[in-house]
Amino acid sequence: MRSFVTSVLILFSSLAACAQQATPTPALYSARTLEQLKAVQAAALSSSYALDQTRHLSNNIGPRLSGSPQAEMAVQYVAAEMRKLGLEVRLQKVMVPHWVRGAETAELVEFPGMAPETRQKIVIAALGGSVATAADGLTADIVVVRNFEELTALGRSKVEGKIVLFNNVFDRELAAGGFGGEAYGQAVRYRGGGPAAAAKLGAVAVLVRSAGGSQNRLVHTGATRYAEGVPQIPAAAVSFEDAETIADLATQGRVRLRLVLTPKTLPNAPSYNVIADLKGSKYPDQIVVVSGHLDSWDLGTGALDDACGVAVSMQVPFLLKKLGITPDRTIRVIAYMNEENGTAGGRAYAAEEAVDPTKHIGAIESDLGASHSMGILFTGKEETAQFLAPISEVLRSQGAALTQRQDEVGTDINPLTRKGVPSFAPWYDTRTYFNYHHTAADTFDKIDPKALAEAGAVMAVLAYGLANLQQPLPR
Amino acid sequence: MRSFVTSVLILFSSLAACAQQATPTPALYSARTLEQLKAVQAAALSSSYALDQTRHLSNNIGPRLSGSPQAEMAVQYVAAEMRKLGLEVRLQKVMVPHWVRGAETAELVEFPGMAPETRQKIVIAALGGSVATAADGLTADIVVVRNFEELTALGRSKVEGKIVLFNNVFDRELAAGGFGGEAYGQAVRYRGGGPAAAAKLGAVAVLVRSAGGSQNRLVHTGATRYAEGVPQIPAAAVSFEDAETIADLATQGRVRLRLVLTPKTLPNAPSYNVIADLKGSKYPDQIVVVSGHLDSWDLGTGALDDACGVAVSMQVPFLLKKLGITPDRTIRVIAYMNEENGTAGGRAYAAEEAVDPTKHIGAIESDLGASHSMGILFTGKEETAQFLAPISEVLRSQGAALTQRQDEVGTDINPLTRKGVPSFAPWYDTRTYFNYHHTAADTFDKIDPKALAEAGAVMAVLAYGLANLQQPLPR
Repeated sequence: MRSFVTSVLILFSSLAACAQQATPTPALYSARTLEQLKAVQAAALSSSYALDQTRHLSNNIGPRLSGSPQAEMAVQYVAAEMRKLGLEVRLQKVMVPHWVRGAETAELVEFPGMAPETRQKIVIAALGGSVATAADGLTADIVVVRNFEELTALGRSKVEGKIVLFNNVFDRELAAGGFGGEAYGQAVRYRGGGPAAAAKLGAVAVLVRSAGGSQNRLVHTGATRYAEGVPQIPAAAVSFEDAETIADLATQGRVRLRLVLTPKTLPNAPSYNVIADLKGSKYPDQIVVVSGHLDSWDLGTGALDDACGVAVSMQVPFLLKKLGITPDRTIRVIAYMNEENGTAGGRAYAAEEAVDPTKHIGAIESDLGASHSMGILFTGKEETAQFLAPISEVLRSQGAALTQRQDEVGTDINPLTRKGVPSFAPWYDTRTYFNYHHTAADTFDKIDPKALAEAGAVMAVLAYGLANLQQPLPR
Repeated sequence: MRSFVTSVLILFSSLAACAQQATPTPALYSARTLEQLKAVQAAALSSSYALDQTRHLSNNIGPRLSGSPQAEMAVQYVAAEMRKLGLEVRLQKVMVPHWVRGAETAELVEFPGMAPETRQKIVIAALGGSVATAADGLTADIVVVRNFEELTALGRSKVEGKIVLFNNVFDRELAAGGFGGEAYGQAVRYRGGGPAAAAKLGAVAVLVRSAGGSQNRLVHTGATRYAEGVPQIPAAAVSFEDAETIADLATQGRVRLRLVLTPKTLPNAPSYNVIADLKGSKYPDQIVVVSGHLDSWDLGTGALDDACGVAVSMQVPFLLKKLGITPDRTIRVIAYMNEENGTAGGRAYAAEEAVDPTKHIGAIESDLGASHSMGILFTGKEETAQFLAPISEVLRSQGAALTQRQDEVGTDINPLTRKGVPSFAPWYDTRTYFNYHHTAADTFDKIDPKALAEAGAVMAVLAYGLANLQQPLPR
């Protein structure tokens, strides 16, 4: 990680240098736009619109897993709210996976030193897309591995008929150091690929240590992937604590678990991206996308992931309408469906015939919570940073003047990014995000109103800046 | 709170002054004892005995609620371990409540904005001693109050037939400032007295916001009390998050909850205090008690509350045996039963005819986890601090030289304290304790090995010091 850190630091220095350069000629932004950006920022920092929308989506609508009644209600709600603002709204139909969590219990029924006639509860949650056990569950010995290499080393003889626990440790220190995404990326491989890898060696079920930083007996769910031609076996996440306990007991002797998982995979269901346009006055056919995703996991109420992202997107036209400002280009709010377990919405939007990437000036997505914004992430050419510099200058007063290039900045807009659309995201402090996302504790109280207001300002200032940019972004 | 804080600060100053005084004449401790105290401390700081015992009680035996097979197994285990050390062991029979958790589910079935045909899960845990609902549950409107005053103000007309949510906020800032016990004391009144207060006004059930600092959808259980002549109504704790959500929704309109709780209260069961004596060489009939409690709540594995307290007590004779030291007085390890929901063990011990308070030179209990030890808490006369000064000097090298007088220092030893027995406890940093205790996350991983070793040193140095003290403590 050291070389990555160093390169980021070098990048900061060079960008700081860029930010101090004189604005290129001809001007990127008109003087009037630059004044308006400050007004947009001020309006965002004092608005409670995004907070109220986040609250409604989280508390009143609740968990919004693709295919659920709550997801459908969220679609209708956002569409109605956008119509209230006078936007042109359409629903883009997408077929989404429809997986429904069932009963889920796990108990240790044998381990060294166990009291007779007792069972010890293990805290689990089925991984999204998991198949079910038999209704009365399955019971098998547990074999513990820390990584794929240890699994491979064990081989079929020691794995067949067993429940494999992937006890890969989420790197809390890395996350605390500001690299939550890196830590998550390392851990989530086991959630995604663990079941298929274990099934190849004859395992009957899989437990995966939660891919998150919480130490509160909290389980991190998320999608898993089965592989072609490999048996689909039941898969659940276990809490950090239960993984530690099982790993300790397994060093002492036989550990047997009874696992009951009864999720259902129903036929794919129709759902929708909500697409709402605030038409541009000069170039209405040129589009800046502001987006988040409307679906969430089902354990919590999806406040951080990603009601707040949708809410700060909805807030952009709200603020412009309130200020009586019409952008040069069209600002398009998209509340994507199915980011969590299929990305059908993001793929469908970019694939639509009517969606011309060359007319998409930029795409912004907010999908990493809403802690303090440090600046803007962008894709594409490094020179983009120069185009962002005047925007960063406006955002400097709220501590959000940094910029950083990445290959990807948002799951739903990745298909646009791959078609050459310059893509952007607020650059959030994610030190605590991975303690909560995909867990039952992703709830409205986790939203810091001040940080959400800052995120809203980044979204609105960036979107309006791109909508009024006087030169094309490098592509 | 300000006046309390101020008085504590003044106390620190005066105690610091005491610690600098010359040792009174005749000496409180012999030169040999003072040397031995250092050896005991060094042995404790490098021992893994307490850690291993905590691990075994937590991971291998697990939750140890009074009356459970695990509690019985823990009794037998500790007795056997103490016999292994060559101690004289007896089991003191006590009758304990036998409450068994059942199914527990809660769902919002109506609230403003709710999607049709859905229910929203609320995370709960029955309070210890709660009666059950009907097997198929009860459904009623929720009324939210922040405190007893608001409940009283509502009156019977607005409470009758309702589920009362006591939404009293645990003061996390107070706890973070080092006053976790104060914060807990304020919050726990609703867990204890809430059900009776609500039932008096005709409520059909009670929810109590968790009396702890966690913000991880984690529920804090613990004992509740019913009142004579008042209906016993089902009572459960809800997570911080669910309390916040319900309170928000209730400001908007009707909120109805379906609650299923099926705990059982079985006839009182026989259980035991484990009492193990390391006989004193000079005054075998004079006793210094070192203790913790063996029972725990049933959601977690009771590592912090209080396997670690029992373990550091067990470690005292282990260390002395290892060092080949015999104390002047008898050191008595007591693993108390039933601290959590009845305190039968603590009361039974002090009430036993054979237990002569005047022969009990001191009683120590560790029952606030095992974070960094800052020093020693004591009851009785302020002058006791002078008797502790030489011990504090030894403990200064590990950052544990503070002392503070309190009226009570441990639930199980309170009956001895009230009979005049000078009582002591390690003075722990409790900033994080109330995030975990009584929750499912009170598990072995929460034990910091270094801090546990420090706690073990405080217990052992203090116990051996008292056992060899050359003057009577002020009583």
